[in-house]
Amino acid sequence: MKDDFIRVTYRIECAGSIEAMAAKIASDQSTGTFTELPGETDAVRKRCAARVEGIASLDDADTPGFPDRDGAGPYHRGDVTIAYPLEAIGTDVAALMTIAIGGVFAARGLSGIRVMDIDLPEAWSCHPGPQFGIAGSRRMMGVERGPMIASIIKPSLGLTPEETAEVVRVLCEAGVDFIKDDEKMMNPTYAPLKARVDAIMPVIRDHAERTGKQVMYAFGISSADPDTMMENHDYVVRNGGNAAVININSIGYGGMSFLRKRSALCLHAHRNGWDILTRHPALGMEFRAYQKIWRLLGVDQFQINGIRAKYWEPDESFVQSFHDVMTPIFSPDDRPLPVVCSGQWGGQAVETYNRTGRTLDLMYLGGGGIHGHPGGPTAGVRAIRQAWEAAASGQSLETHAATHPELAASLEKWG
Amino acid sequence: MKDDFIRVTYRIECAGSIEAMAAKIASDQSTGTFTELPGETDAVRKRCAARVEGIASLDDADTPGFPDRDGAGPYHRGDVTIAYPLEAIGTDVAALMTIAIGGVFAARGLSGIRVMDIDLPEAWSCHPGPQFGIAGSRRMMGVERGPMIASIIKPSLGLTPEETAEVVRVLCEAGVDFIKDDEKMMNPTYAPLKARVDAIMPVIRDHAERTGKQVMYAFGISSADPDTMMENHDYVVRNGGNAAVININSIGYGGMSFLRKRSALCLHAHRNGWDILTRHPALGMEFRAYQKIWRLLGVDQFQINGIRAKYWEPDESFVQSFHDVMTPIFSPDDRPLPVVCSGQWGGQAVETYNRTGRTLDLMYLGGGGIHGHPGGPTAGVRAIRQAWEAAASGQSLETHAATHPELAASLEKWG
Repeated sequence: MKDDFIRVTYRIECAGSIEAMAAKIASDQSTGTFTELPGETDAVRKRCAARVEGIASLDDADTPGFPDRDGAGPYHRGDVTIAYPLEAIGTDVAALMTIAIGGVFAARGLSGIRVMDIDLPEAWSCHPGPQFGIAGSRRMMGVERGPMIASIIKPSLGLTPEETAEVVRVLCEAGVDFIKDDEKMMNPTYAPLKARVDAIMPVIRDHAERTGKQVMYAFGISSADPDTMMENHDYVVRNGGNAAVININSIGYGGMSFLRKRSALCLHAHRNGWDILTRHPALGMEFRAYQKIWRLLGVDQFQINGIRAKYWEPDESFVQSFHDVMTPIFSPDDRPLPVVCSGQWGGQAVETYNRTGRTLDLMYLGGGGIHGHPGGPTAGVRAIRQAWEAAASGQSLETHAATHPELAASLEKWG
Repeated sequence: MKDDFIRVTYRIECAGSIEAMAAKIASDQSTGTFTELPGETDAVRKRCAARVEGIASLDDADTPGFPDRDGAGPYHRGDVTIAYPLEAIGTDVAALMTIAIGGVFAARGLSGIRVMDIDLPEAWSCHPGPQFGIAGSRRMMGVERGPMIASIIKPSLGLTPEETAEVVRVLCEAGVDFIKDDEKMMNPTYAPLKARVDAIMPVIRDHAERTGKQVMYAFGISSADPDTMMENHDYVVRNGGNAAVININSIGYGGMSFLRKRSALCLHAHRNGWDILTRHPALGMEFRAYQKIWRLLGVDQFQINGIRAKYWEPDESFVQSFHDVMTPIFSPDDRPLPVVCSGQWGGQAVETYNRTGRTLDLMYLGGGGIHGHPGGPTAGVRAIRQAWEAAASGQSLETHAATHPELAASLEKWG
């Protein structure tokens, strides 16, 4: 339903009435104060009043999601949808965050609150969205079909620019489509960004000249200072680079918005810090809601873990995240390239393919899974490509490995 | 201890060994991957290895802070301090956030993790910090001593610019030192920022000319787009305004950093959204850690609730927050003016004074407590000043009210 309302669905938990809490939130986020005021006329309310549109009851909980000093269980739960007039919020992400998200978490008497989804009206299509997205990423890497196979510099921190360039050379030779700085690699004194660009870009260019293959390298240009970040960006562009790793939470909406307007680079988003929003199911924000904002602000590629990730995230959460980033907000062009990563070595390819809608529109990123292959990185990349051939052709990894020794070696080591 | 390490203290909870988890986090945030790698030499480790410096054990918990799919109770808890070499992080807030904060929350096997404090080395004093802070705020409002008495536009949303200007006129007459837009008021179509400036600034100027009193007005200039925010900022400055409400989480570090470098306004920070970080004691970040970053980035005035706030925050948390913002990081000048607010009407003045170190270096903000006073806003402001006279002179509110009818009326209504 696209009209002039912004609809936010919250999962609310409280000892008191869910209906009363929903009404209180809608009122607090419009005109409320703790006492009756003379100026709060009907005209005022009409201009900006949020209203509760629906409540779906959920089972009670015996223990509170987070401590509630005012209440005692059972704790009632429900998914509450509140509609905010576009007139009151407009199309600025900061206004949305403050009015419909930030302030809501301060309400008293809650023992749980989580933003489940945000439904934005057509007016929000004014945001730029991805500049390159899936099609642009394919074009820039020259990968017409199939998954884009990616790797990352390892060890993730501590290498000098020259040592890093040597890793890049090895990975280019190994046949990857994409290489990235670890998200923790930004501008340390032992490997400043500019020195990395100086050392790495000749390797990328040389490989392109010799083989015709343009490997995409994403440099860690993030800075909490947008001026510094743009300086970094410009340096990468001037030296022929075409991508950057962006730590979206660490630069914030302002940093992202500023960068996107001026960017010539493909922006590969890393969501570190997102876990704070999502590790407790009764608190924070669903990835579904979270990723919409960053996509509208211009993320081209979005890291979302993978099957059997080394982090805490359960597989079903990853699968849902994949679905979320592949669902258009206003148009298919606002979809970023999903980046499947964390502990990936190819062994998860078949399951990933089968559980994410049998698409090959993804980047599949192996770190240790490529660098640590018993036959070396070239064999590691081959093994991953073989695993995806198995997935796309409906074979099991084991069957395919019978005729593909690199995959067989991976299965032997990590399977 | 100020040397070349950034120390972060985490409250960690897990079913397994706290020592092992601490070591894993230190390793993951330096060089770690899920498999052994050839390049991870001693030289690499030395450049950037984080190390566990201390573990203070806490009591076990029977139930997990948040669900842990791998473990079963009891859940061990401890405060773990990890030292990161400055060489690996540098002085960029984005690097600090990604390396020492963001990534840590992704670790598997945790059932609780909260950043308790961040101890920054001297190199971090390179950040600008507050431009005006406590002394500048006093100077701009012409309040040499005593608390700065503030109010907010009510109703918070829905008024036209002309209606808002009328509220401003009433509050100026009532004798406040400071007025602010509600944090939810940014740039809605029914009351765009520029129209508010056009309507409000003549009232402020006229009041200053007639009475010699320069009331500080903080306009809601926040935008997720730093260019738009600067346009807003410039418009306020061109029209003689001297302050702005900044929704810090909604603009992010990038927005704040960009603004501070170019700002001529006193920046009044509203932390909406902070509650997400803090409502669950086993997850997120202590205000003590959080506020340091925003202060270094340049917040001049910091809203921190108050005693018996209308929100969920317990009084002891507010008292601790007050102490936190009043504690120098590198110098007394990096302290912002604490803004005590939410449900305040003067009745909390004595307790606030006694529990926050008997200082009058604060802004005390009444919304409904001024607008809703039975004798009108002038009486509301008088009642609050009387309450603070009582506090500073060691009297009870009741005793002071015996000779001060406005305070007596407040006690009658809200006491």
